[in-house]
Amino acid sequence: MTEDALPPLTGPVEVVGAGLIGTSIALVCRRLGLDVVLRDTSAKHIRTATGLGAGRAATAADRPQLVVVAVPPAEIAGAVVDALSRTDAVVTDVGSVKAAPLAAVADRVRASDLARYVGSHPMAGSERSGPLAASAALFDGRPWAVTPHAGADPRAVGLVESLVLECGAAPLLMDPAEHDRAVARISHLPHLAAVLVAGRLAAAPAEHLALSGQGVRDVTRVAASDPALWQQILESNADAVLDLLGEVRADLDALMSAVAAGSGPGAGTDLVDILARGNAGTAAIPGKHGGPARPTRSVFVSVPDHPGELARLFGDAGEIGVNIEDVHIDHDPGRPVGLTELVVEKGRAEHLLAALESRGWTTHR
Amino acid sequence: MTEDALPPLTGPVEVVGAGLIGTSIALVCRRLGLDVVLRDTSAKHIRTATGLGAGRAATAADRPQLVVVAVPPAEIAGAVVDALSRTDAVVTDVGSVKAAPLAAVADRVRASDLARYVGSHPMAGSERSGPLAASAALFDGRPWAVTPHAGADPRAVGLVESLVLECGAAPLLMDPAEHDRAVARISHLPHLAAVLVAGRLAAAPAEHLALSGQGVRDVTRVAASDPALWQQILESNADAVLDLLGEVRADLDALMSAVAAGSGPGAGTDLVDILARGNAGTAAIPGKHGGPARPTRSVFVSVPDHPGELARLFGDAGEIGVNIEDVHIDHDPGRPVGLTELVVEKGRAEHLLAALESRGWTTHR
Repeated sequence: MTEDALPPLTGPVEVVGAGLIGTSIALVCRRLGLDVVLRDTSAKHIRTATGLGAGRAATAADRPQLVVVAVPPAEIAGAVVDALSRTDAVVTDVGSVKAAPLAAVADRVRASDLARYVGSHPMAGSERSGPLAASAALFDGRPWAVTPHAGADPRAVGLVESLVLECGAAPLLMDPAEHDRAVARISHLPHLAAVLVAGRLAAAPAEHLALSGQGVRDVTRVAASDPALWQQILESNADAVLDLLGEVRADLDALMSAVAAGSGPGAGTDLVDILARGNAGTAAIPGKHGGPARPTRSVFVSVPDHPGELARLFGDAGEIGVNIEDVHIDHDPGRPVGLTELVVEKGRAEHLLAALESRGWTTHR
Repeated sequence: MTEDALPPLTGPVEVVGAGLIGTSIALVCRRLGLDVVLRDTSAKHIRTATGLGAGRAATAADRPQLVVVAVPPAEIAGAVVDALSRTDAVVTDVGSVKAAPLAAVADRVRASDLARYVGSHPMAGSERSGPLAASAALFDGRPWAVTPHAGADPRAVGLVESLVLECGAAPLLMDPAEHDRAVARISHLPHLAAVLVAGRLAAAPAEHLALSGQGVRDVTRVAASDPALWQQILESNADAVLDLLGEVRADLDALMSAVAAGSGPGAGTDLVDILARGNAGTAAIPGKHGGPARPTRSVFVSVPDHPGELARLFGDAGEIGVNIEDVHIDHDPGRPVGLTELVVEKGRAEHLLAALESRGWTTHR
């Protein structure tokens, strides 16, 4: 369906689960002037979300146009079935796995009701949870998978796409099983690799850990997430996850053979091949907002640890006219000078370096 | 040896290999006023490094106090043997693996000469290489392993410690084999895990990759490194790397069993245990500069895409008096507003949020 032919979102919108994602969607809908009604097993969440202006508590008399189910993974199917039974609305959910909840719903409702259900998955979140972490800007520019089943009503699919667009996100139509294979690859596998590496640090000698650099911090960061939530996610996508883990197990065996073979005559090439495939994989990830990744370069600048020095650096970079794509600060409160890494478009790096130096900054080429 | 009893670094210092690390050490020594002589098989590197003020080209008449070998991993042992034969200086190297080069050197020199060799490994670097990327600030606040063998002259060890301290780094005395087990765990294993995850992206469907978020980018970032360099590093530390890969293989098997078992009665606990061990591992990594990791919290702020807006944000944060530990910018040049993540000490986050809001910034709690 083309964008201008999509059914308009007119409300009321019912949000089931007033956590981070649900309350954020409610805030977007309220900003559009729609009637938003909230359901949550936690009366505190409802009070908080209504206090934030995210809508009002639902009543039995409400007749929603769209129900958005935003509850923990293990509760999604039940909440979708309940919404399909209670209302004649289009129903979507925002869970991170799609095929298993769909199958559970299909087992429990008539095909005519199932036609009103269209799963979806916004690729947005936060390390924080609950309605206080919500924001109408949460989905801005993010991919948002919309995963209709074969029997879905095209107008129901269109209404979910309308919601995604109103949230400022980019809808990606995908088959539910294909979506699950995709997140197994780009979310669940990276998560589990981080868990395995971090697991080898848990009982490591302190003198090993003392040598930790930025690499191990980046690789393991996501392993700090909530185990109970991730257990639910992994179990509801067990087949796709196990397929990929099996592939990685074969890759690991090949890697161990390559390392063991060493670089004698005829050996060693395999290890370079494996490492080069890693290069290709990092290059395959698209740019942050779906466009092609642009080559960047890091410019390092020493910044005195005084309030206002970072502001002066960004002010100078702004005047120089170079867009800063990302920033990392290697900052130790006890030290007089920190190292700041400015990530800029590759072709602009030399200009920025020269211009910062002419303004008296100490850069590290 | 206590710090004030260390032999003073008086020079001349000879640097073999005028790349990123060698030239950076040379710049530190020149800043101390020492005579620095440079050797490199590349005449261009020598010209560049001398042009940066990193020293002068070496002559046969030079009598160095200390030789620093900073060549690619596969060439280290040969360069150390050459330096021990040519001079009566203390000799160190800065390679990322210690036991294999030591064994190769020990096979080829007398014990009296071997006593002058003390390996070391600064935990610093850059995605760039070559003398133009060099900086006297490269080692500032970083750990720097010093790995003497049993027959090392204590005064030679002390001189290498003096170099480390003069570079602004923190010396960590370690046994060479223990060092290699440490870097296998906190550098080589994370690198290989990133390579395996990235390898599964290399031939992935574009619609899978379109769902990529920050997690997969962080986990795979280091897999973009030079395969030829990493082949040398991994092969020279093959035993320690294979030991750890074997442990991870057993962990992977346990993980696959736990995912396959699902959450039926009596099952599921194992998966939570594995995920919780990942939590413990991330918490075990010390703070960036060796101190304990302090709890931080991220504050999200919408920043209009105009030059100077980031400067205004940092200026306001400075006036509010909250130290910014790290920054991430989710920036798309085509969009009017970007999301900026300020990482601050946990106890200061609410104060920063309230103060930024009172100054008109749109924050996302």
